[in-house]
Amino acid sequence: MPTPLPVTGAWRPGDEVGHRRFFTMPPDRPFALDTGMVLAEMAVAYETWGELDERGGNAILLCHAWTGDSHASGPAGHGHHTPGWWDDLVGPGKAIDTDRWYVVCANVLGGCQGSTGPASPHPDDGLPYGSRFPVVTVRDMVRAQARLGTHLGIEAWHSVIGGSMGGMQVLEWAITFPQRVRSIIPIATCAQATAQQIAWGAIGRRAIRLDPRWNGGNYYEAAPGDGPAEGLAVARMVAQVTFRSDNIFTDRFGRELADGSELSGRLDLWQRFEVERYLDHHGDKLIRRFDTNSYLVIGKAMDLHDVGRGRGGLRSAIARIRVPTLTVGIWSDMLYPSYQQQQIHAMLEANGTPSRYIEVDSPHGHDAFLIEAEQMGAAVGGFLDATPAG
Amino acid sequence: MPTPLPVTGAWRPGDEVGHRRFFTMPPDRPFALDTGMVLAEMAVAYETWGELDERGGNAILLCHAWTGDSHASGPAGHGHHTPGWWDDLVGPGKAIDTDRWYVVCANVLGGCQGSTGPASPHPDDGLPYGSRFPVVTVRDMVRAQARLGTHLGIEAWHSVIGGSMGGMQVLEWAITFPQRVRSIIPIATCAQATAQQIAWGAIGRRAIRLDPRWNGGNYYEAAPGDGPAEGLAVARMVAQVTFRSDNIFTDRFGRELADGSELSGRLDLWQRFEVERYLDHHGDKLIRRFDTNSYLVIGKAMDLHDVGRGRGGLRSAIARIRVPTLTVGIWSDMLYPSYQQQQIHAMLEANGTPSRYIEVDSPHGHDAFLIEAEQMGAAVGGFLDATPAG
Repeated sequence: MPTPLPVTGAWRPGDEVGHRRFFTMPPDRPFALDTGMVLAEMAVAYETWGELDERGGNAILLCHAWTGDSHASGPAGHGHHTPGWWDDLVGPGKAIDTDRWYVVCANVLGGCQGSTGPASPHPDDGLPYGSRFPVVTVRDMVRAQARLGTHLGIEAWHSVIGGSMGGMQVLEWAITFPQRVRSIIPIATCAQATAQQIAWGAIGRRAIRLDPRWNGGNYYEAAPGDGPAEGLAVARMVAQVTFRSDNIFTDRFGRELADGSELSGRLDLWQRFEVERYLDHHGDKLIRRFDTNSYLVIGKAMDLHDVGRGRGGLRSAIARIRVPTLTVGIWSDMLYPSYQQQQIHAMLEANGTPSRYIEVDSPHGHDAFLIEAEQMGAAVGGFLDATPAG
Repeated sequence: MPTPLPVTGAWRPGDEVGHRRFFTMPPDRPFALDTGMVLAEMAVAYETWGELDERGGNAILLCHAWTGDSHASGPAGHGHHTPGWWDDLVGPGKAIDTDRWYVVCANVLGGCQGSTGPASPHPDDGLPYGSRFPVVTVRDMVRAQARLGTHLGIEAWHSVIGGSMGGMQVLEWAITFPQRVRSIIPIATCAQATAQQIAWGAIGRRAIRLDPRWNGGNYYEAAPGDGPAEGLAVARMVAQVTFRSDNIFTDRFGRELADGSELSGRLDLWQRFEVERYLDHHGDKLIRRFDTNSYLVIGKAMDLHDVGRGRGGLRSAIARIRVPTLTVGIWSDMLYPSYQQQQIHAMLEANGTPSRYIEVDSPHGHDAFLIEAEQMGAAVGGFLDATPAG
C-alpha cells in the first residue's frame, strides 16, 4: 500500500496562500515553553473572518482539535486540503455570524499547517526540527495564541470556543488569562486527560515508533512515499475508532466486506471488511495532509493536559474560571465521555460561576461536535446571543 | 526495547508436559476447514480434570478466549506460563466442581499452545506453516473440539461454557451440534462480530504487518529477540485497553507517571505515564508466551464470527439453539457491550428456548469474566446445579 509522503513543511511569512496569514514573534523575543526550553523563532498561522469593531469587543477565538488547522470556515483549496472544519457554523448569517463577530482561528504551536512545528526549519541550520522539536503543552499553544491576540489588538475575546483538544485550550485560556476572556465554550473535552485517553495516545505513539521509516523523527529527506505513512495510519485508525461510536459503525458498515467481495470461497487474512476499508481510507487520507511528528507532538500535549498541574490541583484551577461558561457534551462520546463535561459544569456551578451544560443528542460519538451542525449551532449561537458583548 | 522471541512452536504427541495431553487426527483423516482447505495433520492439545462417569453424562467443555489455552485450572509450570485462566472457578469443591464434573479444555485450532497452528510444522517440509497457515473460523475450532469429544467418548456435553471468543465457540457448539450439547453458558460474547469489534482487530493486524520483523509471517528462523515482538505488543495494547474500562484505568493509574518520575523539568515525548508502563508490560508479557501468527489467525476468526453465515441469518441460526442457556453480560464491558448478550437472551426467549440472563456488576470491563470469580462462580455454579445431569 504505497502512500505519498505528507504534504507538509514550514510555511513562512510570504508563503501566504488564500486567506491564511502569519504572525511571527519579533526576532528579539524568543518564545519560552512549558518545558523550560525556548523557541528562538515562532510563527503562528491564522485566519480571520468578519471585522473587528472599534472597541475591539466582538472577537471570537476558535481553537482547533488534533488534526485541525486555522481553516475553520471556507471551502477547500488555496493550500487547504479540506473545507473549514466548522464551515457549517461559521460564516455570514450562521450560528457564529461573521457579519457580527470577528472570528479568529490559529494553527496550534507544534502543528504542520503554518505554525511552527517539527517540520519547520531549525534556526540553527535551516533543516527541519524533526526529533529536535521540543514537547509542547496546551498551555504553550494558548500562550502562542495570546501573543497573536495582542498582535491583532484584541484585549479580550468575547468568547473562546473549541471542541476536543480545542476545548482543552478553551479551559486553559480562561485559567491562564482570566482578564482576556469574557466567556468560554468548551466542547467534548476534559479538564485533565484520563488514563484511558493517555492509553489511546500511547498506542498511536508506539505504532509510529514501530514504523522504520519514522526513523526517530528524522524522515524529512525521505523520497515521496518513503515517509512514516504506515505508522501514522495505524495511529490514526485507533483515533478514528474512538472518534465514532459502536452504533454508527454498525449502521454504516455492519459486517459488509470491502469492494463488494464475499465470504464464500477462500477466506484470506487480509480480505477487508468495509469498516477496515474505511479506517484504511482515513489513515491514508491523513498522511497526505499531516506531518507524523506533529501528530506525535500534539498527541503528547493532549496526554499532558491537566489544568490542575502546578496550580494546586484540578479544583483550584477550575475555581479560577469566573466567566460565563457553556460546556457541551455528547452522550455517545466514548473518547471524552459526557461525565467529564458534566464534572466541569458541576465544579463551575459549585463555585458560583455562571455555567450551563448542554448534551448533544447524537449517535455519532466524539466527532458529533463536527457533524451535528444544527445542534451545535443552536447551542453555541444561543449562548453567544445571551452573553452581552463587551 | 529488545524482547525475546515468543516461546512457542508445535507440541507433538510425546512432548507431553504436566497435565496436557494430545489428540491427533488419524493420518487418513485430513481435517477440512471452513475455507475449503484441508489440514493434512491436526493435533488438539487438551487438559482434563475429574472423572468421566459411566454414562458419560458429566462432561463439561470449557472454551478459552483469544490468548488463552487448555490450562483452565491449576498452577503455572509444566509448560504453562500462567496459572489456569479460570483457576478460581474450576477445581474440587469450586463452582465448576471437578469432584462432580469431568471438565475438558482444549487449545483452539490455530493456537500456539499445543494445537495445530501457524508455528506447527507443515507436513510437506517439516518447517513452520508461517504464512502458509490457512484462515480458520470459530466453526473450525468447534469441529476440532467435536473430534476430541468423540475421541474421549463423550456423546453430549452437560454444558459448554466460555467467555469472549470462548462464548463464540459455545454458541457455535449449540448450533452446529445440537444433539451433543445439553446446556450452554455464553459469557461476554456476541452472535456476530460488530464493525467496531472488527475495527479493533484490524488495527492489531495492521500494527503487526507494520513490524518488519513479522516478514509476511515467516519469522520462525529469526534469532531470539528478532521476532515481531513490537508489532504484537502494539496489537496487544489495543486489545488490553478494550478489555478493561475507563473507570478502572482512572482508579489504577490516574495520571501517575511511570517509575516515580515527575512532570516538572524537561518534558519528553517518551516519558511514560503509568498506564503506558502497564500497557507496555502487558504487550511484553504476551510476546514471551504467544505466537504472533496465532494472534493474527485467531483474531481473524473472531472478526469472521457470525453464527448466521450460511444459515439464513442471525435469527435462523439462534433459532437452532434449543438447550437451556445462561447468557452472562458485564455492564462495564466496552468490547462486547452487554446489549449484545441481552439480544441473544431476548432472541432465545422469543423462540421459547429456556434462557436466563445475568449481568455481572463489575467495573472491570470485559476481563471481569476472568476477574470476578465470586459473581461468575455463583452464576455458573447455580446454573449447573439447576440443570439436570444427563
